[in-house]
Amino acid sequence: MIAETSTIAIYGPGLLGGSLALAIQDRFPQVRLRLWARREAAEAGIRQRGIQAAFFTDATAAAQGASLIILCTPVETMPALAAQIAHAELAPDGLVTDVGSVKGSVVRALEPVFGSRFIGSHPMAGSEKTGVEAARADLFQNAVCLITPTTTGEPAPLETLRAFWQAVGCRVLEMTPEEHDDKVARISHLPHMMAVVTTLAALRTDPGAVACVANGFRDTTRVAGGDPGLWTGIALENRAALLTQLQAASATLTELLEILGKPDEEELRRFLAEAQRLRQTVPAAVS
Amino acid sequence: MIAETSTIAIYGPGLLGGSLALAIQDRFPQVRLRLWARREAAEAGIRQRGIQAAFFTDATAAAQGASLIILCTPVETMPALAAQIAHAELAPDGLVTDVGSVKGSVVRALEPVFGSRFIGSHPMAGSEKTGVEAARADLFQNAVCLITPTTTGEPAPLETLRAFWQAVGCRVLEMTPEEHDDKVARISHLPHMMAVVTTLAALRTDPGAVACVANGFRDTTRVAGGDPGLWTGIALENRAALLTQLQAASATLTELLEILGKPDEEELRRFLAEAQRLRQTVPAAVS
Repeated sequence: MIAETSTIAIYGPGLLGGSLALAIQDRFPQVRLRLWARREAAEAGIRQRGIQAAFFTDATAAAQGASLIILCTPVETMPALAAQIAHAELAPDGLVTDVGSVKGSVVRALEPVFGSRFIGSHPMAGSEKTGVEAARADLFQNAVCLITPTTTGEPAPLETLRAFWQAVGCRVLEMTPEEHDDKVARISHLPHMMAVVTTLAALRTDPGAVACVANGFRDTTRVAGGDPGLWTGIALENRAALLTQLQAASATLTELLEILGKPDEEELRRFLAEAQRLRQTVPAAVS
Repeated sequence: MIAETSTIAIYGPGLLGGSLALAIQDRFPQVRLRLWARREAAEAGIRQRGIQAAFFTDATAAAQGASLIILCTPVETMPALAAQIAHAELAPDGLVTDVGSVKGSVVRALEPVFGSRFIGSHPMAGSEKTGVEAARADLFQNAVCLITPTTTGEPAPLETLRAFWQAVGCRVLEMTPEEHDDKVARISHLPHMMAVVTTLAALRTDPGAVACVANGFRDTTRVAGGDPGLWTGIALENRAALLTQLQAASATLTELLEILGKPDEEELRRFLAEAQRLRQTVPAAVS
């Protein structure tokens, strides 16, 4: 468990890292908080947000004696950071996790370094704004956090991690890294790409059609306004699972084109009714 | 103009017809309001919502002497209704319109019956709930209303219709029926079908994935919860324009599959950035 006297080290003070720091300050005021960033210049932004952590640019020093290490950097920089952290001596029950939005590649890279001390996490909280400027202590409130343990016979680290995410407000679900990447491709990466495709198909050849926009279009395409650089990284990291989902979507769209091409009224009604039934199983937002 | 002493007849007391009746009562309290429904049984629901209109089941009688006739029934029943209304004598400057979500087929059917007295309308207001139970006087507040005049040299009916929609809260845009059907396919019917396809692709083969849903999925697929019968009718009425848009979406999805298949990181970033730029041109909701 996270004791009053624990040391928690957060690597990468962006939206997620900054929000975690604020949430930990709120929830565990006695915890010794450390924040690592690559550049000295990052400290000013952290202080402006009222984060009281000790600040480090030396990744090994920031990890020394820590009970919980949370990697909040882009996924592609985690292996190099892990190699530096591995030189430190963590607390005896020290635990390492990350908040990356893909898990297969992260777990394959970090488990060989940290063994059963490492368990992957993915708190599914806001990603359209970026940077510590957008950080909020309640970002994780009512979010789902997917955690991906792989080693067996080590219940203690798993219980610590679960309790930590619950303490900052998350509902925790446990699955393998492969299951994670499949689920997230289905319910996050696929919808993002479909919003992008819908926006391009509708407006590329007639940008003036935005004058007629109503709320259906606004909602269906909202996430297409997200950061292209961030989403390029996510799509490439979870490429295999996303390709599978996009191929399924392409086949489903072809099915609809065939139904409408005939047209087969009864089949179209069944197709729309099946989607309606599935959509009705989506739990309402809690916030 | 709609005078204090005008008679307005609304055909079809569902969500749109009922909301129009409530809005007219609010905005034009002296107007003589008539409501036509196919069945006597509809009157009880209208009275429960506090609508003070004279109630008719005879379509010809309801139109007698009317200054404005608004058809709010499903699009496919409008031609038969128009034939009955044509037996009535409207007011000298009497005007006929409809609220159907397609315009080409409606205008082709009703213009031969009513000549320059008919102008099509499409107020783009909420369609997920149905029935007079869901009617609201402010349903049209800040909505876009597309009107599709085709005859020239008759400015008076057009000005009356424009003023009427503005009076119930709409922002009015004017275009041909064909332009209307193309725009609406792009920004309403296409996004609806894409939300349906996304829901089916994501959840058909793994309904349990809903446990991981976050707000991106909720927004992107919201409209897929709409009424299958209603949307079957809309898709078939606007089939040609919708097929064109769905084919464009299919080609755009294939483009994305090719970029991600290589993968071409720079091309992916450009693709996502183009969608982001177009999405940023969408005006924010007013309400």
